[in-house]
Amino acid sequence: MIQPYHHKVQYYETDKMGIVHHSNYIRWMEEARVDFLRQIGWDFDKLEAMGLLSPVVHVDCRYRASTVFPEDVTIETWIEQFHGVRLIIGYEMRKSDGSLACQARSEHCFTDREGNILRMQSAYPDIYRDFAALSREKA
Amino acid sequence: MIQPYHHKVQYYETDKMGIVHHSNYIRWMEEARVDFLRQIGWDFDKLEAMGLLSPVVHVDCRYRASTVFPEDVTIETWIEQFHGVRLIIGYEMRKSDGSLACQARSEHCFTDREGNILRMQSAYPDIYRDFAALSREKA
Amino acid sequence: MIQPYHHKVQYYETDKMGIVHHSNYIRWMEEARVDFLRQIGWDFDKLEAMGLLSPVVHVDCRYRASTVFPEDVTIETWIEQFHGVRLIIGYEMRKSDGSLACQARSEHCFTDREGNILRMQSAYPDIYRDFAALSREKA
Amino acid sequence: MIQPYHHKVQYYETDKMGIVHHSNYIRWMEEARVDFLRQIGWDFDKLEAMGLLSPVVHVDCRYRASTVFPEDVTIETWIEQFHGVRLIIGYEMRKSDGSLACQARSEHCFTDREGNILRMQSAYPDIYRDFAALSREKA
Repeated sequence: MIQPYHHKVQYYETDKMGIVHHSNYIRWMEEARVDFLRQIGWDFDKLEAMGLLSPVVHVDCRYRASTVFPEDVTIETWIEQFHGVRLIIGYEMRKSDGSLACQARSEHCFTDREGNILRMQSAYPDIYRDFAALSREKA
Repeated sequence: MIQPYHHKVQYYETDKMGIVHHSNYIRWMEEARVDFLRQIGWDFDKLEAMGLLSPVVHVDCRYRASTVFPEDVTIETWIEQFHGVRLIIGYEMRKSDGSLACQARSEHCFTDREGNILRMQSAYPDIYRDFAALSREKA
Repeated sequence: MIQPYHHKVQYYETDKMGIVHHSNYIRWMEEARVDFLRQIGWDFDKLEAMGLLSPVVHVDCRYRASTVFPEDVTIETWIEQFHGVRLIIGYEMRKSDGSLACQARSEHCFTDREGNILRMQSAYPDIYRDFAALSREKA
Repeated sequence: MIQPYHHKVQYYETDKMGIVHHSNYIRWMEEARVDFLRQIGWDFDKLEAMGLLSPVVHVDCRYRASTVFPEDVTIETWIEQFHGVRLIIGYEMRKSDGSLACQARSEHCFTDREGNILRMQSAYPDIYRDFAALSREKA
């Protein structure tokens, strides 16, 4: 059972509108993704040590309500889709009162250190199996 | 004739992969947008002084090739769509060799200081006229 | 008894040297300061709601050892000096192995919303009393 | 003759006080330093390609007046002191009206890729000569 990630809004994340600057949500997605991977046993640094990189190829972020300092934002993270090459991760961020702040997705591929795109089913079958099993959208 | 915006990649924008961290492109979109609005005569601070805010409600960013330090990134910015409420701005970022780095869009609404969404045609007809005239997708 | 603050190093805080970019420590000082003020009962937002601002007028940061992703940095925070106008806060950051990463200080004044510098002993005697009592360097 | 560096304040650099967040000045110091090194012919990336790193070991930043969006900040940069091991760089930042915004210093050492501190007079005599010649404080 994956636990949601909690991000405490920082003062330096606000802008002159008095709310969190929208660029920070992209960073929170990364924080939540790192935590999600740790929970499923495939930590970022473990992947990197194996020579496996997973660059972001696409982000999509829909802002529903602004967040403020200080506030505790709760982020639910899941694997939306994974068929072996392209990994799509979904995110839902909620304000401390439980209302929706943001809905987002990030898309990743997997590469070796030279930047070659990997087909995970043959390159890393154990990662493939774990990620595919967690995918909400089944093949 | 709108001039493209130039962003010089900074050392602090890189990450441990040795390339620019993907979150910075969202900030470059803002830099380019601010410059675009200045060029068409509707500077951000002029709009804010009029009590007009234009929060980001959606960003979408597709990464095509990584950028590095030091590099000069050229950003072309345009109004993709505007019918009076929702403003969609398009961006195309190119590396110093001219190749494509990133394609992005941001979506905005216009609000007064209390956060009420404005219909620009009636609220600010001169801004409506200028933005609609520049929109690539005609009504 | 003040509890130390913990900061989890984020991937986006690293730079192309593979370590945390030095500018982030200034932000961690703020995170630790916010947490320290919360612990002593004078939360940032409570002060702001009272119309009391405390801008940073000086920072000084000595880097002893680099920190990396992922790593848990422990920050000890204290009031170094406070005589009623100028507040000096001290910070000591340690790596997950307990070794010293950074020694820092920030200096603040207190102002009202118009930016007038306040003498805290007369303006806010209860804050003056609490801060002075916690100061390591006695008058 | 070294030309001052110009930084255009960005919207995302502001905070909820309505002014530039103090942590950004540390980044502007880096921008100005990179530009200074380029002007004297020892570009950051040229040094890195030679296997020469120059980590920041100390920063000191005194804030004199706040800066706002939009504003053009002018940064004068110079070598304060260099005797072959420790390099001290000085910075003076001015607001668009010419008034003083910030006075700062950064201290650096030089290391090889393994992190060994270098004595520049013997390791890189040409860099030593150029930096020492530009130092305001003579040996």
